[in-house]
This record gives sequence, structure tokens and C-alpha cells, in this order.
Amino acid sequence: MRSKGDQPGIDTLRMLRDARIGRLATVNERGHPSVVPFCFAVIGEDEPVVVSVLDEKPKHVPDEELARVRNITHNPNVAFVVDHYEENWSRLAFVQVRGQARLLKPAEPGHAEAIIALREKYPQYRSMAIEGRAVIMIEKLRLTAWSATGE
Amino acid sequence: MRSKGDQPGIDTLRMLRDARIGRLATVNERGHPSVVPFCFAVIGEDEPVVVSVLDEKPKHVPDEELARVRNITHNPNVAFVVDHYEENWSRLAFVQVRGQARLLKPAEPGHAEAIIALREKYPQYRSMAIEGRAVIMIEKLRLTAWSATGE
Repeated sequence: MRSKGDQPGIDTLRMLRDARIGRLATVNERGHPSVVPFCFAVIGEDEPVVVSVLDEKPKHVPDEELARVRNITHNPNVAFVVDHYEENWSRLAFVQVRGQARLLKPAEPGHAEAIIALREKYPQYRSMAIEGRAVIMIEKLRLTAWSATGE
Repeated sequence: MRSKGDQPGIDTLRMLRDARIGRLATVNERGHPSVVPFCFAVIGEDEPVVVSVLDEKPKHVPDEELARVRNITHNPNVAFVVDHYEENWSRLAFVQVRGQARLLKPAEPGHAEAIIALREKYPQYRSMAIEGRAVIMIEKLRLTAWSATGE
């Protein structure tokens, strides 16, 4: 895992791991970005990867889901951000993560671990049949951290 | 302004206008996305535009700011998302906005209105010298709304 300048601090990694939601940007074949909120989990320590699942939230938008898959298949370069917002702007912070995404089908290596990690982080997934759904795995993570205080 | 399917409802527009923060995705010349949180205001009713300012938050990251400007200059296609997250996933919702971005320098048509709108929405900007900074204007908005309830 590379980060700009110094190694990512413990706070940066903690912010990433603890974030309940991120916003994931992908790019289509015409170079147009899409960005949608997504739930994810971080697996591993030295070379961590990020996993997410194409879940069946009630009344999801198949178009958006399909676009994300198509974009990743065509262009694996993705980015996502987790951030902290409040009206006191001296406390703003974010972590941007860039990486390479690929799809894992059920039974592919890494899929089962992803489902376990997602269910550990999100109790909501424990009653959902996500084990039969494709996983997005993001690897070769590069982190950029920013905070208003510069810490 | 176009939206997928039906015209965007009043709730969709309200969610967009009221959001205190969005996450803006741009694409660089190699087709790699960046996504960062940003503050914005919506101007207009029939053909609304979104404005944001390259502000001088304390200890900002010049690299990230520069990348955003370079990306927009090279590829005006951008997307951003505003969303509502809570642990009760039946209440999740988001609005994704796609559009064309361009930079407005101070004194260019539209710049002064953007500064006024941003200061009206964000009291934080009233004491910041943002009138001397470039504005990002996003036009030709296309909205996609999603909510877990399907409403």
C-alpha cells in the first residue's frame, strides 16, 4: 500500500476501516465518471484490500449496479473517499483511496473471506443472501489523507 | 435538466439543494478517477447549475486541488453524489448528478452569483476571501435518484 508522502498513519487506516460508507467512483468507456455510495470492508494488514458486494438492497437500481460492473470490467481504475463533515470546518477530514478493482464470483478465491468480513462489519448483511453475489475487490491501494488541522 | 425516467421529484431537488456536502468525481487524462468531498450550491430553477469554489480551507492539499482543476480542464465530464446513510438500511437514499464542469475566474460572468450563493448556503464562506478564487460550475445536470423505499 502506498500513500502520498509519509506512510499512512494509524488514524488514516482507522478512519478507512471504521467508515460505515464510502463513495466509489468508476469510469465508463467514454471517460465519464459515476459515483455512488457503497459499503465496504478492509481485509488484511500489510497489503490490505477493500471488498464490497453487489448486494440486493430493497428496490435497488439495476442500471446503476450494471454500470458499475461494466465500468470496472472496462476500466479497473477506481477511487473512493471516506470523510468526516461537520459545520466546524476546522474538523474536516477525508481519506481518498485509489486502486484497481476486479469482480469475484462466488467460489472464486477471496470471495468467501470478503463475505465474512462484510458480515462482521455490517450486521445488516448477516440476514441477506450476499454469499451468492459478486464481490468487488479493490487492490493496490494508494491512500491520500487530508485534514483541516493538517494532522 | 434531465433525469432518468420521470422528472426529478421535489424531494430529489430538495435533497440536492439541502445537502451540506457532496462527493465529486473527476477523471484524469489516463482515465483514472478522483473523488473528493466538496461543498456546493445550486443556482436556478428550470436549468439549475451547481457551483463550488476552490477555497482555501486551512492546510488544504494543493496536489488534490490542482488535480481536480487539471481533470476538469482535460475532461469536463464529472459526477457527484449526495446521500443519506444510516444503519437502518431501509432509509438509505442518494442522488447522483452528472454534468459538464468548467472553471470560472473572478469577474467572469456567473462568478459573482456563485460566490453569493455559496455564502448564502455556507456561513463559513462569509469570512473567507473566496471572491478571488476560481469557481467550478457544473451545467447540463442529469439526476438519478435512488431510495431504499423506492419513493
